[in-house]
Amino acid sequence: MPEFRNPAPTVDVVILLPGDRVVLVHRKNPPLGWALPGGFVDEGEKLEDAAVREAREETGLAVVLSEQFLAYSDPRRDPRRHTVSAVFLGRAAGEPAGGDDAAEARAFAWGALPSPLAFDHAEILADARRFLLTGARRRP
Amino acid sequence: MPEFRNPAPTVDVVILLPGDRVVLVHRKNPPLGWALPGGFVDEGEKLEDAAVREAREETGLAVVLSEQFLAYSDPRRDPRRHTVSAVFLGRAAGEPAGGDDAAEARAFAWGALPSPLAFDHAEILADARRFLLTGARRRP
Repeated sequence: MPEFRNPAPTVDVVILLPGDRVVLVHRKNPPLGWALPGGFVDEGEKLEDAAVREAREETGLAVVLSEQFLAYSDPRRDPRRHTVSAVFLGRAAGEPAGGDDAAEARAFAWGALPSPLAFDHAEILADARRFLLTGARRRP
Repeated sequence: MPEFRNPAPTVDVVILLPGDRVVLVHRKNPPLGWALPGGFVDEGEKLEDAAVREAREETGLAVVLSEQFLAYSDPRRDPRRHTVSAVFLGRAAGEPAGGDDAAEARAFAWGALPSPLAFDHAEILADARRFLLTGARRRP
């Protein structure tokens, strides 16, 4: 089978902590800003396993995934190359600690999210918040 | 940014036709069998655009997407290479006609699906049917 030039699959995780908080990481590589924990899916790795791995690497948290949310695929969502991100929702206990690609990992109240948010993560966070409050997902 | 070895992103579409029917294509390339219309996502192409394009190429139908469903990523789901498929639900009118990678495209009643079904499409169809009847999605 020939190799096509494809977008790269990635995962991002909306990690919910007690106290109605969400975990974000401050990127130490461009594009800079706050972002959801996440990264590239490895060959041979399921999306769910990639999501748990990236969450642990970037925040130190052991996440229990609760929901496979939407996938985001706008070619402009990452300025470096075209990525398709499958977003998961999950829960964890304890407090986040930065590592790996993240200089800092911190929990924020939903009403006090930081800026700037990198990539399309402001849109993902708004969609996820709406889903958590109403059960509604954005339609194609 | 270095190139990693990643799974390839694909789309599959559950096309619903009037009369509670779903459209499947009979593959003319291995793995043989009946399958959901779908294929690889092109660089620079959104998942939604790939889903509409593949549906048109393989069935001749103009699909209106109604829902982004789940993504399937088991490394064994395609014997040729690791693919991650984002599955969409959509509706169309008219009757399907085969083309492209599909030797034949046909509408089936949900209670009379053909076999064998290629890839993990039996699982996807069961999950989609359950979602259409109950609104429930499989959890991670």
